[in-house]
Amino acid sequence: MEEEGLFFNSCGNWIKNYLQQQQIQLDTFLKSEAILSSEKPIVVVTSGGTIAPLEKRLVRYIDNFSTGNRGAGAAESFLEHHCHVIFLYREGSCCPYGRFFPKHCLEILHTYSLDGDHLSDNGKLIVPFQKLAKATEQSRILLLTFQTVTEYLYALRQIALSLNPFGKRVIIFLAAAVSDFYIPESELPEHKISSTISQSHEEDEQSSQSSFLLRLYHVPKCLGWLKSKWAPQAYVVAFKLETDANVLLEKAKHTIDKYGVDVVVANELTSRYEHVQLVNQQQQVIDRYSNDKTIEQVIVQNILDMHQRKG
Amino acid sequence: MEEEGLFFNSCGNWIKNYLQQQQIQLDTFLKSEAILSSEKPIVVVTSGGTIAPLEKRLVRYIDNFSTGNRGAGAAESFLEHHCHVIFLYREGSCCPYGRFFPKHCLEILHTYSLDGDHLSDNGKLIVPFQKLAKATEQSRILLLTFQTVTEYLYALRQIALSLNPFGKRVIIFLAAAVSDFYIPESELPEHKISSTISQSHEEDEQSSQSSFLLRLYHVPKCLGWLKSKWAPQAYVVAFKLETDANVLLEKAKHTIDKYGVDVVVANELTSRYEHVQLVNQQQQVIDRYSNDKTIEQVIVQNILDMHQRKG
Repeated sequence: MEEEGLFFNSCGNWIKNYLQQQQIQLDTFLKSEAILSSEKPIVVVTSGGTIAPLEKRLVRYIDNFSTGNRGAGAAESFLEHHCHVIFLYREGSCCPYGRFFPKHCLEILHTYSLDGDHLSDNGKLIVPFQKLAKATEQSRILLLTFQTVTEYLYALRQIALSLNPFGKRVIIFLAAAVSDFYIPESELPEHKISSTISQSHEEDEQSSQSSFLLRLYHVPKCLGWLKSKWAPQAYVVAFKLETDANVLLEKAKHTIDKYGVDVVVANELTSRYEHVQLVNQQQQVIDRYSNDKTIEQVIVQNILDMHQRKG
Repeated sequence: MEEEGLFFNSCGNWIKNYLQQQQIQLDTFLKSEAILSSEKPIVVVTSGGTIAPLEKRLVRYIDNFSTGNRGAGAAESFLEHHCHVIFLYREGSCCPYGRFFPKHCLEILHTYSLDGDHLSDNGKLIVPFQKLAKATEQSRILLLTFQTVTEYLYALRQIALSLNPFGKRVIIFLAAAVSDFYIPESELPEHKISSTISQSHEEDEQSSQSSFLLRLYHVPKCLGWLKSKWAPQAYVVAFKLETDANVLLEKAKHTIDKYGVDVVVANELTSRYEHVQLVNQQQQVIDRYSNDKTIEQVIVQNILDMHQRKG
């Protein structure tokens, strides 16, 4: 596809270093005894928000609000179902088993530092740490990072292409909050945009000096390429997050029709920790609520069932 | 000033709750025995980056890259000089004495969880924690937070007005990375901007559908109001960060001329941890380097000397 080529040839050499390092880690992981001797699904979980820089030397950027909780929780559940997980996440967002570390760390150390007593946390931190250490040791999880939407899309393509030989065993679980718009590298100013109007951005001649226009470009939708070219046999789970419940299901169905993904997990911003809707290729809508399990556990259980039925 | 009134009357009621809670904390802090019985400077340190939301129900926003390291480091130095510190910082950015917590926490707990041994960190975390606990206990530090540029400006105004009675004893140290542009609340769409072109944003009729224009407004420069109205006797230290060293000093001097601030700390992005330039009202440029001290310690020492000389 022409658009694909255009996008993936538009970046400077810096992206090559980023990809090379990931490819080495990926190759090692995929050749491990743990992967080769098992038939359990290999799951790519993407997580956290991508950023769209407004300058080449990164000072300002457009960000998506995303803690990475959903992706991290889902990765934990996949691991508990004995899957192998490639966790592609935004630097600094939540990690599997590390979701509550910063908060709990501080609580625990605060208590510790004040009374000088020994560390005792009733397993809040120690147990998750041991689980993460064990999964890493057993080569059941690989952690890879991104920051910008460009890094994310290049990384996703590289991972999907590398997993293609594993065919139907692969699940791609796209929980990351990917930017919808960005400024291509060729149009980015080298330096910080001036707070008086910058040359490299559109001026608005009619209004007063107090406003200016910024030209944003739509990020290419890679879902179609993922299903048609990069990993056609993989089971692809996409996410839709909307603040307006009225348009949510319609958009979820549109994503299935247009890109051929297998399932869309539809979330409404305020209720997303209690309730999601799963839309499949038959346009069935399955409502799922968190009960005694977390919503991520419920989603993962359903996805694994659906993946197995499709087999 | 008309522009001031326009800006500070443009927000919904939500801002009132935010300000009320801060005012209560502020009043308690300023009436403490520690402040009333001492003549040491009361220093407002602002820190971290402000965000400019692109939607009312916050999903996407423009952010400034800022870890908050400089502000946190400076606050530590002011505390060590026995000043009283009001630390107004971006939620989640660095706190005084907490700068290296997340990283060190994880290292330490990782070691701990694997060998099951007692916590031993050679003071990396325990000592800073004790210092922070002590400063809090002695009412020498007040921590206040912001997220958006609107919250930041309202909070800064409220703090400055509350400190005005303390006259020349006040230093306002503006290390926060404040957005230069934003979308006013009246123009923000209620819901997430659609990834197909949104009604509430400018369309670009000439180009293809793959790009669109976003209208951004300049954030009002509050430095002038701060010096002329909110806290005229306070000693105001502003910051300039540029990626282009060639325009840096010129912009720093312009800030002094235009807004009447007392000092501008001029930073170039890549060298800012080793070298800064202090520009004063006499347009003197003082080069300062970190040597056996951190650059924040060097800046704070110089600011305190200059403040005292001005008396």
